[in-house]
Amino acid sequence: MSAYQTLEARFARLDALEGAMGVLHWDAEVMMPSGSMPVRAEQLSELARLAHQQMTAPDMLELLTQAEEETGLDPWQQANLREMRHQYLHANAVPETLVAALSKATTTCEHVWREARKERDYPKFAAYFAEVLKLVQEAAAAKADAFGLSAYDALLDSYDPGMRIAIIQQLFAPLEAQLPQMIQQAVDQRSADRPELLSTSVPIETQTALGLELMQALGFDFTRGRIDTSAHPFCGGVPGDIRLTTRYTEDDPFESLYAVLHETGHALYESGLPEAWRQQPVGKARGMSLHESQSLFIEMQLCRDASFIHYLAPKLRTHYGIQVSDEEILTALHHVERSLIRVNADELTYPLHILLRTKLEQALLDGSLPIADLPTVWDDEMERLLGIRPDHVGNGCLQDTHWPGGAIGYFPTYTVGAMIAAQLKQALARDVPDWATQAAAGEFTGITGWLQTHVHAHGSRYTTPELVEAATGAPLSPEPYLQHLRARYIAL
Amino acid sequence: MSAYQTLEARFARLDALEGAMGVLHWDAEVMMPSGSMPVRAEQLSELARLAHQQMTAPDMLELLTQAEEETGLDPWQQANLREMRHQYLHANAVPETLVAALSKATTTCEHVWREARKERDYPKFAAYFAEVLKLVQEAAAAKADAFGLSAYDALLDSYDPGMRIAIIQQLFAPLEAQLPQMIQQAVDQRSADRPELLSTSVPIETQTALGLELMQALGFDFTRGRIDTSAHPFCGGVPGDIRLTTRYTEDDPFESLYAVLHETGHALYESGLPEAWRQQPVGKARGMSLHESQSLFIEMQLCRDASFIHYLAPKLRTHYGIQVSDEEILTALHHVERSLIRVNADELTYPLHILLRTKLEQALLDGSLPIADLPTVWDDEMERLLGIRPDHVGNGCLQDTHWPGGAIGYFPTYTVGAMIAAQLKQALARDVPDWATQAAAGEFTGITGWLQTHVHAHGSRYTTPELVEAATGAPLSPEPYLQHLRARYIAL
Repeated sequence: MSAYQTLEARFARLDALEGAMGVLHWDAEVMMPSGSMPVRAEQLSELARLAHQQMTAPDMLELLTQAEEETGLDPWQQANLREMRHQYLHANAVPETLVAALSKATTTCEHVWREARKERDYPKFAAYFAEVLKLVQEAAAAKADAFGLSAYDALLDSYDPGMRIAIIQQLFAPLEAQLPQMIQQAVDQRSADRPELLSTSVPIETQTALGLELMQALGFDFTRGRIDTSAHPFCGGVPGDIRLTTRYTEDDPFESLYAVLHETGHALYESGLPEAWRQQPVGKARGMSLHESQSLFIEMQLCRDASFIHYLAPKLRTHYGIQVSDEEILTALHHVERSLIRVNADELTYPLHILLRTKLEQALLDGSLPIADLPTVWDDEMERLLGIRPDHVGNGCLQDTHWPGGAIGYFPTYTVGAMIAAQLKQALARDVPDWATQAAAGEFTGITGWLQTHVHAHGSRYTTPELVEAATGAPLSPEPYLQHLRARYIAL
Repeated sequence: MSAYQTLEARFARLDALEGAMGVLHWDAEVMMPSGSMPVRAEQLSELARLAHQQMTAPDMLELLTQAEEETGLDPWQQANLREMRHQYLHANAVPETLVAALSKATTTCEHVWREARKERDYPKFAAYFAEVLKLVQEAAAAKADAFGLSAYDALLDSYDPGMRIAIIQQLFAPLEAQLPQMIQQAVDQRSADRPELLSTSVPIETQTALGLELMQALGFDFTRGRIDTSAHPFCGGVPGDIRLTTRYTEDDPFESLYAVLHETGHALYESGLPEAWRQQPVGKARGMSLHESQSLFIEMQLCRDASFIHYLAPKLRTHYGIQVSDEEILTALHHVERSLIRVNADELTYPLHILLRTKLEQALLDGSLPIADLPTVWDDEMERLLGIRPDHVGNGCLQDTHWPGGAIGYFPTYTVGAMIAAQLKQALARDVPDWATQAAAGEFTGITGWLQTHVHAHGSRYTTPELVEAATGAPLSPEPYLQHLRARYIAL
């Protein structure tokens, strides 16, 4: 067996182990009884230990080096080997003691954060967050060292291989320059009142049935996946056994439905990955930005488009018994409002929430923003960007789970994903000119098939910029995204 | 760290791994989409490989030997070490290639068996079963060698540590001598017609609600366990996260209910095991006979007793809307009928199904019964013991999954369990004289508390015979069981 083949066998076993963890995580969120967490924590930590042990086995480095000298690898195998090396470097950069300390500190901090957010008690949170931040800084320094990157770039790279702050700054600058004024225009052109339709009550069983119908229409394979309810919607499991979740709110006909559509976008990506490479690093999703581009393509680019609403509206009228026109639905779904909470923000204001976080997390990481100053700096920045000011830390800097969980470098992927989605959509319109007619007729295979061919089927064979350029014919750019937002939200 | 402490740490990690497998098995039966088996099989086989690797680690033998020489271990630790050695011997007796071959052959044979049973095609099954039997014989020979036991005893020991065919023969002989005549008497004393109540239709939601109510009353902890539906009822998961299942038949008010009660007996055992030893071999259930004694104690000894029916009957009348007297319910639940299918057999005829299998599987294992002759020998034996003859292999020798699955030596545990349950019940009546008054009042903590103290809390500290003798004051005997059957089924 060649060194490359040995590595393939090892990574296939690692994939099985990680798949098991995926199902156990899903179970913990969806099925597990409330008192069983201690037992589950032992199981997950043992599986994580075994996975880490395999990834840091003493002969791994030699196998990788040997394989890199072997000849006759085809392009997929070469890309696979590159991904193996990349995963190896990430896993081996951070000492095991630091991994364990970080896991413990974030578990505690997330727990304290939940209470502190409720109690609006920043000092309570800050003490624990200081420990998390210190450990993240150490881990980032270790990775920076291993990869020859800056600390923040090293963290970005772990969520989105190849992503760098220099790229992000270039992508985000036009948003910061143009969005505030676009939002002002959009708000001026709209009624300040939230459309009533957004708070129409619909029984949960009815919502569930329509969600299933739309998943089916979009091509979700229920023989290799299922949908359940959890506190926060997510797409878990593994390709071949996808576990999607949503949550239901009786007083909102769209929240759950669009969560389902969003997660279905993630699911289609996972199930569209190259089957032959399912167990190998090159067969995995490319990174968080591209993953988010797939969920946002379905949720935002496709399912909030007038064509899709033409397909959806009769269902809302018959299934939900809501007497509304297509136009009223579009008005509701394209409502724009300055708001404090990221997860509730509309498509147009959302990027500013990300810009704020991207800026502040860099400052937290390099130490230029003291933890004690975060609430004020957050509120000031919010006021500067969106023109509104949080009235307490609960709807200010304590609203998100990412930082207490140690995830610094993750936030930008949301907006980079939104940009990629817009650029892919322009390319789709070029390649499949009648996509809107198809969508209006409830015929989605032309659209999802295009995504499968140009995005999903490549797995991690190319970098994200390479893949976007190959799929769209142009380098990743904020322009299609800004054009999309302008077209959708600003009346001529 | 002493050798013993090192072993404790290793077995705790092994426990986490096995717990993960438990949840993944449950998920496969209860939640997993139909097309996801290939992915799940990879996950389970990798976890099994890792567990086997840990159990056969090169330094395990030395650690065990060293620990056995260490002084100062308390009785629990000593028993734990004994159990570790026992598990080590079982895991190491059979070469890894044979384990893998057996796993592959049984998976195939179980699949073929399902079809062959449906098609009543014995030759189709026999070809694959020959391979399974050959491998089981090899594994039994290897274990026999390692333990200095006969081949059949070595298999018995893997399901029920310490169980030997000599003990079983002594226990079963009086059953074979007395049951046929008792059954004749019972049948003569009853109407030949199946009581109508047994096929009264009850909506599944109603059955579910009553099942939950009874589980709660018996002390099932829903913060550390749940109940779902599967093709065959089972009690899975791990202590601290128990996953119980049942199946519902609309045309039978008792089938699902008594499956729930049976599995609740298993669940109470698991959750009553000593918390401090939860992750160690000594903290596990003692063996399949004792496990079955706990499910049968709840299902048969307690919940088919007149006292329990006094508690249950008003619920049946109000919840199920069935207008029946306590007496009619008892008549239905104590109906006796010679039948061909073990899993549908009543309490009185059931042991003869086991006697038949226990006899024939020994003959299959030692080669004295050629596979080709099994159908005829089965039918003859059925006729001799129960006086009825199968009309095809589907309700004859192809009815059970055990043999195609490679489980030879398992069947006797059902009836040994039933005997232990009867003996424990007599001891309960001695220690808690008003148990029946308590049960009739729906007060079960005196009964389950007695089981917890005398059975569950000991984990695997004692052998099954030691435990039964300690709990009841007498050696394991078939007499209490025969007395129970006589009292319940034969009118004076």
